[in-house]
Amino acid sequence: MAEPFRERLRRAIEVHGPLCPGIDPSPVMLERWGLDDSATGAREFALRYLDALAGRVAVMKPNVAFFEQYGAAGIGALEAFVFAARDAGVLSILDAKRGDIESTNIAYARAWVGDDSPLAGDAVTLSPFLGARALAPFVEEAASSGRGVFVVARSSNPEGREVQLATTAAGASLEASLLEEVARRPSVVGAVVGLMAGAPPLPLPKDAFYLAPGLGSQGAGLADLAGQFGGLTSTPVVVNLSRSLAVAGPDRAALADAAARAQGEIAGVLRPSSG
Amino acid sequence: MAEPFRERLRRAIEVHGPLCPGIDPSPVMLERWGLDDSATGAREFALRYLDALAGRVAVMKPNVAFFEQYGAAGIGALEAFVFAARDAGVLSILDAKRGDIESTNIAYARAWVGDDSPLAGDAVTLSPFLGARALAPFVEEAASSGRGVFVVARSSNPEGREVQLATTAAGASLEASLLEEVARRPSVVGAVVGLMAGAPPLPLPKDAFYLAPGLGSQGAGLADLAGQFGGLTSTPVVVNLSRSLAVAGPDRAALADAAARAQGEIAGVLRPSSG
Repeated sequence: MAEPFRERLRRAIEVHGPLCPGIDPSPVMLERWGLDDSATGAREFALRYLDALAGRVAVMKPNVAFFEQYGAAGIGALEAFVFAARDAGVLSILDAKRGDIESTNIAYARAWVGDDSPLAGDAVTLSPFLGARALAPFVEEAASSGRGVFVVARSSNPEGREVQLATTAAGASLEASLLEEVARRPSVVGAVVGLMAGAPPLPLPKDAFYLAPGLGSQGAGLADLAGQFGGLTSTPVVVNLSRSLAVAGPDRAALADAAARAQGEIAGVLRPSSG
Repeated sequence: MAEPFRERLRRAIEVHGPLCPGIDPSPVMLERWGLDDSATGAREFALRYLDALAGRVAVMKPNVAFFEQYGAAGIGALEAFVFAARDAGVLSILDAKRGDIESTNIAYARAWVGDDSPLAGDAVTLSPFLGARALAPFVEEAASSGRGVFVVARSSNPEGREVQLATTAAGASLEASLLEEVARRPSVVGAVVGLMAGAPPLPLPKDAFYLAPGLGSQGAGLADLAGQFGGLTSTPVVVNLSRSLAVAGPDRAALADAAARAQGEIAGVLRPSSG
């Protein structure tokens, strides 16, 4: 049995801190880095970013959309990143937001958390519109391969509120009822809990693990991070920064400096005792 | 301005009928067809299926998961199908269930409904857990390229009920409130409305267009199809069959016969006047 993802994540955070740089090779960012708007450009972006931050961060999060926009060639670039990250000892969360009916999820799980797949990093994000229980094939495959899944409970965009705050037949909000599902398999299943400026914090099971997008260019601040995650000092939480970090590149030293600064600011909120 | 997807779909249904064969190259089905559990096997499966049914069906629906399970090579196989379907005059709905925050959806929209993308068929399915309004980049890109999107309102699996029947702040079910959003852009935005044995029908805007999964091996019958879509004789509705059709293959004539039989049964329910 492979070591659970949650434990691998916890150890990596202890060594490097909670920052999770996002790899979003958008046309605008590629141009800024002097790279082509192509699969080759996306590959270069991801590998240079990894090279600048390996040994300095626990985990990185490629956003699959920005590779998929180049078709199969872009997915090939993502495979190159997955391979290189494993080689460099950096955990990878593939931000794919996949999710379908159960029989289809068997195939998606094979792709994203299966042992023999070139696309399987260490964890994947999942979208539960077709039901949390329909995600079972991901959970089973991830448990056996030592990988993890992050189910979106609360996204970081205001448009998500109408859906995620809808009330189930049992009387809970969808975001709260999803977290109950998450807490059933805490070593394999975590949640995406987005930060929004001024949003009331969502009560979270302490046993799970979390990915928090929304800080920085998306508009939430350190106070929002503190309000949502400040009380969970022993729970693995990783905090995503994408654009606001990538603009420091492509210079390696500037990227490393920006990451170190963000690492310190975030750890100051999440792990005040170690700060 | 390209011709709206809804009109292209309507015309194709008038010529060929409402059947939408699903292309799901699962390991079990590949073995049944004597093909490898590989990207090459999936490519062969999709192209042979297309070859058997071109000229006999309006539209086919590859399920992206069963290509993605082979990584970039599998996505390459899907690109080969998309190209071949266009060449054969068969519309293609790419069943991808994509959906994220708006800035990420710009990249997904480029992939699935953008004019220069090797993955862009004629339409794509979308999952709205991060908010229907966040899907705007798909709608804009599809409107300008003459493509369409199908937003999942009701999936065909029982696990989806808890989410899709949750109640919004305005007092409607999520599935009903999503259909209101759909009705705002009827020539570009349609909905996935799944069939389930015995489920009460969902009231549908007549102006939109629909994809109905769930018939056959998933458990719903012609009576469920009639109950949901029987009254919409002038609305474009396509009905998906996957496993229950694919088991007739790989023999071309047997597949064509099975498709013709299904075409007749479904048209008998949806278009009784033309039967």
